[in-house]
Amino acid sequence: MDAPDLTPLLSATLLISCPDRKGLVAAVTDFISRHNGNILHLDQHVDAQENVFFMRVEWDLANFQIPREAIAARFEAIATPFEMTWQLHFSDQIPRMAIFVSKEAHCLYDILYRHQSGEWAVDIAVIISNHPDMSDLAAKFGIPYRVVPVSKDTKPEAEAAQLALLEEFKIDFVVLARYMQIISENFVSHYPNRIINIHHSFLPAFAGAKPYHRAHGRGVKIIGASSHYVTAELDAGPIIEQDIMRVNHRDSVEDLVRKGKDVEKLVLSRAVRYHLNHQVLVYNNKTVIFA
Amino acid sequence: MDAPDLTPLLSATLLISCPDRKGLVAAVTDFISRHNGNILHLDQHVDAQENVFFMRVEWDLANFQIPREAIAARFEAIATPFEMTWQLHFSDQIPRMAIFVSKEAHCLYDILYRHQSGEWAVDIAVIISNHPDMSDLAAKFGIPYRVVPVSKDTKPEAEAAQLALLEEFKIDFVVLARYMQIISENFVSHYPNRIINIHHSFLPAFAGAKPYHRAHGRGVKIIGASSHYVTAELDAGPIIEQDIMRVNHRDSVEDLVRKGKDVEKLVLSRAVRYHLNHQVLVYNNKTVIFA
Amino acid sequence: MDAPDLTPLLSATLLISCPDRKGLVAAVTDFISRHNGNILHLDQHVDAQENVFFMRVEWDLANFQIPREAIAARFEAIATPFEMTWQLHFSDQIPRMAIFVSKEAHCLYDILYRHQSGEWAVDIAVIISNHPDMSDLAAKFGIPYRVVPVSKDTKPEAEAAQLALLEEFKIDFVVLARYMQIISENFVSHYPNRIINIHHSFLPAFAGAKPYHRAHGRGVKIIGASSHYVTAELDAGPIIEQDIMRVNHRDSVEDLVRKGKDVEKLVLSRAVRYHLNHQVLVYNNKTVIFA
Amino acid sequence: MDAPDLTPLLSATLLISCPDRKGLVAAVTDFISRHNGNILHLDQHVDAQENVFFMRVEWDLANFQIPREAIAARFEAIATPFEMTWQLHFSDQIPRMAIFVSKEAHCLYDILYRHQSGEWAVDIAVIISNHPDMSDLAAKFGIPYRVVPVSKDTKPEAEAAQLALLEEFKIDFVVLARYMQIISENFVSHYPNRIINIHHSFLPAFAGAKPYHRAHGRGVKIIGASSHYVTAELDAGPIIEQDIMRVNHRDSVEDLVRKGKDVEKLVLSRAVRYHLNHQVLVYNNKTVIFA
Repeated sequence: MDAPDLTPLLSATLLISCPDRKGLVAAVTDFISRHNGNILHLDQHVDAQENVFFMRVEWDLANFQIPREAIAARFEAIATPFEMTWQLHFSDQIPRMAIFVSKEAHCLYDILYRHQSGEWAVDIAVIISNHPDMSDLAAKFGIPYRVVPVSKDTKPEAEAAQLALLEEFKIDFVVLARYMQIISENFVSHYPNRIINIHHSFLPAFAGAKPYHRAHGRGVKIIGASSHYVTAELDAGPIIEQDIMRVNHRDSVEDLVRKGKDVEKLVLSRAVRYHLNHQVLVYNNKTVIFA
Repeated sequence: MDAPDLTPLLSATLLISCPDRKGLVAAVTDFISRHNGNILHLDQHVDAQENVFFMRVEWDLANFQIPREAIAARFEAIATPFEMTWQLHFSDQIPRMAIFVSKEAHCLYDILYRHQSGEWAVDIAVIISNHPDMSDLAAKFGIPYRVVPVSKDTKPEAEAAQLALLEEFKIDFVVLARYMQIISENFVSHYPNRIINIHHSFLPAFAGAKPYHRAHGRGVKIIGASSHYVTAELDAGPIIEQDIMRVNHRDSVEDLVRKGKDVEKLVLSRAVRYHLNHQVLVYNNKTVIFA
Repeated sequence: MDAPDLTPLLSATLLISCPDRKGLVAAVTDFISRHNGNILHLDQHVDAQENVFFMRVEWDLANFQIPREAIAARFEAIATPFEMTWQLHFSDQIPRMAIFVSKEAHCLYDILYRHQSGEWAVDIAVIISNHPDMSDLAAKFGIPYRVVPVSKDTKPEAEAAQLALLEEFKIDFVVLARYMQIISENFVSHYPNRIINIHHSFLPAFAGAKPYHRAHGRGVKIIGASSHYVTAELDAGPIIEQDIMRVNHRDSVEDLVRKGKDVEKLVLSRAVRYHLNHQVLVYNNKTVIFA
Repeated sequence: MDAPDLTPLLSATLLISCPDRKGLVAAVTDFISRHNGNILHLDQHVDAQENVFFMRVEWDLANFQIPREAIAARFEAIATPFEMTWQLHFSDQIPRMAIFVSKEAHCLYDILYRHQSGEWAVDIAVIISNHPDMSDLAAKFGIPYRVVPVSKDTKPEAEAAQLALLEEFKIDFVVLARYMQIISENFVSHYPNRIINIHHSFLPAFAGAKPYHRAHGRGVKIIGASSHYVTAELDAGPIIEQDIMRVNHRDSVEDLVRKGKDVEKLVLSRAVRYHLNHQVLVYNNKTVIFA
């Protein structure tokens, strides 16, 4: 479920996955209510085929009787017997995002608006690009902009430089806002499920290069965009969000590119929002979206 | 959440609403897990503005230690202190549906298919119409068909005859599948939140007569359909489901009528499915859809 | 553009394609207006990349000064110098359709409704299946039903029997309404661009077998359906129409199958309608849809 | 049909409406082809009910034998006998746009991107607001920003000041990018069919104030946005474009406001594009969109 935009209250969110068995919801909700926590949102899902249980629960910390710094340790006692994998987040933690761009600005504008308007509780710590094209735009908004040129031969060095920047800027997660370079497995391993890409097709159709050209060649009546966590395999990571737009025979490749941008920017922004709100759980290269 | 189509297992579903307070989810889930019930689906919602709590929980009865005929009485002990309004349903109860039609067959065909194919666990007990037009179609599928003519003057008598038929056929809920007559407040009072209508506009636009003509006159670029529970006020009941279709200046009123039928039949069928699966809670003339 | 549903008037429709050059529209419209024809609909398209011109024009024959049987010969004088490929259709010609089905009935119900209600001006001459499952449904609607069993070994004989039936019933075009068999190149060659299939994915994603299983495995957030003319290559023919539906992590494979049916039947019916209205031109394995 | 984004060629576009009669298309296309013009796009529409003919035709001026400054006079000879109302546009004429804003920036960001990226061939000559809030954003992009405060009492003076600015900046058309003030009939009369508004509902539902609050109160499952030319009657002008987004019971009013912004900005931008490309004809308070 969507968390409200402007939460004056302080809340905690638990994201849980574990083998399914009886009593899981009762155990977690009892932990919260026993210590006087008021549940704001609760959602759960059981993958019956895989026998896996997933849960997201957010509660008001106002009168919660466990101090926030002690919650994790106390919850461990619940989590261990159920073999839970879990994350605990607090609503006043503002994550630090890096944006990677190349030469197309539509996703960046969309993100800048959401940041400036307060729609997202996030710090845009740095914009990294293989081209200088958007340094002016970054400067307009007072965001550090770093150019790291990438060529086939210098890729390892370039990625090392990028990783150093991510460390320097204390980055929590990365958004590839139409960054047109392939990310290496090594790079991905530093930010597992924390690099969000937007691919300009409805995956798995047209993975890889020039999807709009190929969509045009195939004569499809619908184009799309897919946002996913980046994994070692190109355009094959867990899909977070997808959407589409109708096209027809009148649309040239250039029309598909133009129309597609509107889908890309919205799909990417919805995916980033899910990530920011801790609404995403990844398993089996798929996502559970608690929305 | 959608219940699976073909549930070989026997399950119970609780639909609950009450004033929001701490411990509600814990109390209900503890009731289930303490008696060895395995939760299949759980969804809850809090209307923070109205301070109302809503919940739907479905659990496997396989090893549940309370006999099904005793569950309601035992749950009462949980429900009372929390001032819960609640319903308990079992997955092997097949509800009995009456369909009201006039002269348009598209929704009826769609429903007949879902019934015949086993997509819906429902008995179509009777089709009631103010016209004989669809008696052949009903006969083809072996469903009783009753004609109750309605005129302005005979409305009370007609409704009395219809109500008698609903009683005779032991009807649980009514689907108005493009039945073009207005239902009286008295009639509605016999089946509160159990009469599902499809209106051929995206409500609240174009409530009342001839919505496609009015949509055409206004030059809208989108038409829609809305399924809602019938209340005393025309086309003003709680909306269960809506959907839309794009149109343009080339579409005549007849085109809108034709295109709209495809939206109408899908929207109505989705609403009926939510009702059949006990996924709908009504409050404040709105619906919570646990889907 | 959509032709009106109920055309009391008699009209002619020309579908034209040829190398693009100046004066094409003027030549065709002059031919019509010079002989006192009133244009009802005109649409054209130029593929600038391929330098190909496409046109559909429909005109009222009421006061047209060339008798209908002489129109083709007279138009030849216009067409030849421009190297036009063209078709001429009259609105009172009712095409004869064969439907191929296997065991799923949703598309068939949808088609039967459109036929019965008069939405389509078409004769359903015969239903052909590799299974007897739908003979009852066909019988209910008085449509001849022929079972032609198909196995790996008997495919050539089966197709020969099917072709004989198509000839016997004087079939103009074939609709594969979830007929789950692959059609041979030889079979297709008898009805080029006259066999319409519905595939249960948004092509080119998930061509071939079990698309919903693969969509579920990939964790997509959108499923779709695609209607196309059948060619020698499986699921690779020119796409006529596509549409999609949102799904999420709660949807099992069975849910995708169920939800997908609603998209399939609408997409197939829209494609058939385009075909019936002579709104489709095929080139380069793509379609121009004059809608 | 969409004109290509980057047209290196010089083209002329005629927009025509007149009483329907035989020979209209032939007369216009003959005019073009006789003088060696190559038609790039042609679209026409007949409103059979009103007996009105509409046409948009765009042709390449490369080898057109009439000098561009003489085309209008020469076309007059065609237009007069048919009683045509018509406009002639050339592709190298860059219109001057004024944007009116209040305090919400999402539409403005979206427009600024399209302008900066070259997606639109338009000059943003001035931004006018009743609040100073967006002066910084305007300054970032080097666009003149003028504050004209508006109160109930000073409306006439404010509108006079705005009209003076529009004249000073030689404005061709106005975009109300979530400008929350009502425009007077007098103001509208200066720019008939040249003021484009975005209203945050699917009109005619929820015309007027606070549409998201009212949508939430009614419990709709779909919200929308509508872009229209402003007329004297509030939110009742000819609709250019509409689109929608699904919502559910979890969405608070604030969620509707946030989600709606994404629809608003895309719908407004599509409407502005149609206007820029001369794809819109207005009649009977409705639009023909040649797209």
